[in-house]
Amino acid sequence: MKEKSKPYVIGVDLGGTNTVFGIVDASGKIICEAGIKTGKYASAQDFVTAGVACVRPLIEKVGGIQTIQGMGIGAPNANYYKGTIEFAPNLPWAHKGVVPLAQMFQTELDIPVKMTNDANAATMGEMKYGAGKSLKDFIVITLGTGVGAGIVINGQLVYGHDGFAGELGHVIVDHGKDARLCGCGRKGCLEAYCSATGVARTAREMLTTTDTPSQLREKPLDTIESLDVAIAASKGDQLALNIFNFTGRILGQACADFAAFSSPEAFIFFGGLCRSGELIMKPIRESYEQSVLKIFKGKAKFLISPLMDTNAAVLGASALAW
Amino acid sequence: MKEKSKPYVIGVDLGGTNTVFGIVDASGKIICEAGIKTGKYASAQDFVTAGVACVRPLIEKVGGIQTIQGMGIGAPNANYYKGTIEFAPNLPWAHKGVVPLAQMFQTELDIPVKMTNDANAATMGEMKYGAGKSLKDFIVITLGTGVGAGIVINGQLVYGHDGFAGELGHVIVDHGKDARLCGCGRKGCLEAYCSATGVARTAREMLTTTDTPSQLREKPLDTIESLDVAIAASKGDQLALNIFNFTGRILGQACADFAAFSSPEAFIFFGGLCRSGELIMKPIRESYEQSVLKIFKGKAKFLISPLMDTNAAVLGASALAW
Repeated sequence: MKEKSKPYVIGVDLGGTNTVFGIVDASGKIICEAGIKTGKYASAQDFVTAGVACVRPLIEKVGGIQTIQGMGIGAPNANYYKGTIEFAPNLPWAHKGVVPLAQMFQTELDIPVKMTNDANAATMGEMKYGAGKSLKDFIVITLGTGVGAGIVINGQLVYGHDGFAGELGHVIVDHGKDARLCGCGRKGCLEAYCSATGVARTAREMLTTTDTPSQLREKPLDTIESLDVAIAASKGDQLALNIFNFTGRILGQACADFAAFSSPEAFIFFGGLCRSGELIMKPIRESYEQSVLKIFKGKAKFLISPLMDTNAAVLGASALAW
Repeated sequence: MKEKSKPYVIGVDLGGTNTVFGIVDASGKIICEAGIKTGKYASAQDFVTAGVACVRPLIEKVGGIQTIQGMGIGAPNANYYKGTIEFAPNLPWAHKGVVPLAQMFQTELDIPVKMTNDANAATMGEMKYGAGKSLKDFIVITLGTGVGAGIVINGQLVYGHDGFAGELGHVIVDHGKDARLCGCGRKGCLEAYCSATGVARTAREMLTTTDTPSQLREKPLDTIESLDVAIAASKGDQLALNIFNFTGRILGQACADFAAFSSPEAFIFFGGLCRSGELIMKPIRESYEQSVLKIFKGKAKFLISPLMDTNAAVLGASALAW
């Protein structure tokens, strides 16, 4: 017989700078949270010891460990199947090897611990508490420093045979010789165009190669960030709108390819760029409808995550633990 | 309580010209088969009546309808969820509307009937009897007149929210202005390069734009087919090998994008082009390993379907019925 679920789970957002622990209830409410500096510890064991010391008082606040169903961790380079963090360049205690972090927390806390990467955690969050609650087939695209994705098919998150599926930031959107170099070392990746860094790059290119007047010209070229573009676009700045149209066109075309793969009912967008609302969503939709195979036209919804103003990373990670 | 499986299923390969009915056992042996002309009938009901008259003697041969678990149909433009054929351009009795073919056969035969498209049926065949028997995550790519695909994730065929997932012949592999026009009306689709028609097109292009000596120059340009290229390649003809390298490079790059999506353990290729074995598989593998994201390198297998010399379409359709 299946045991009745306990009322709370712990969500852990393990980032390059901070690690935040939150106690979350089944409705997606974060009851309390606290954090530690991720990089302050020399060894993975020191990090776990500090993390446990940080989360214990939170657990006591909601009635002790017997009220906790489990812990979910969202972390860079996390392997869902093995519960490990593998060669994570930004984590001093995990950049040179494989750390069985899920098992280490499980041993200390004596509750089940699951771990996945950041984008998959965000996707679990959408499925449990967000725009994916009533959907069985959808794709979450996170537009941040990079472009991440989580794919849900028939109600299940897609991990692939090795746990690394959903790297949609690294599909090739430009096969040409002059395609942009991506951080992954390859050329023409979606991420090189549609991440925050990609948008800033487009801005610098368009400022250099066109004469379109723009308030962006008031800033030194190498300090322009995607936020500057968003602010300018919101004021009707034509060059900024051109940058959004370029970005949206590429995202829409990429989504048309994703539709050919898994035919999702919705694409859910998450991240800073989405705060510009229709200014970015309209070119995405228009480009998608223009590009997509006839049988898919007019079917997919394009949504903005409703979780953006919450601590979505903690929420998403917590969703792993139910 | 689940009833014990009956010993046989019926597989139906519904093609533009012929429709073949086969009785198949659990090991994938086709016990007996018979067929009718698909296009000879004015209405769907006439087609079903003729089909039932054709399959009844086969059913009697294996001991009557009580030995049959069900029927699976592989058909163009088939909707798995609804059991319908929708606007199939090559079927006179289904080109203008929606035909509930699964239900029509079910009513006549009083056994469960499932239907899906040709590529998905081929994929079910690989999963039940072929190269996918021991795999949970794989992609079947059918290289025929068109390029079709079936995607298996976590042991389940991917249908998508509307039943039309897996249209990998129509992902865009060339975003350039001069990309080839595809039969779907869009430009740059994988199918425009890597189908049998695409290979013939590459041959005509290379014969026109290069001076490489080739036995292919002995044929009139507009009569060259992909089979001619395969024969020439098998004899070491350099131009034919160049055509295979070009085709394999595009397929390998496309598979690298598919890996970023679902990270399959294997790609299984099916169709005439695969009969050239390593001549086509080697460039596919090399291009894949060169193109794919680092975390996927060296992981995926590239296999040729072992079902190619059987009546794979009947087998695949039959796999739906278990």
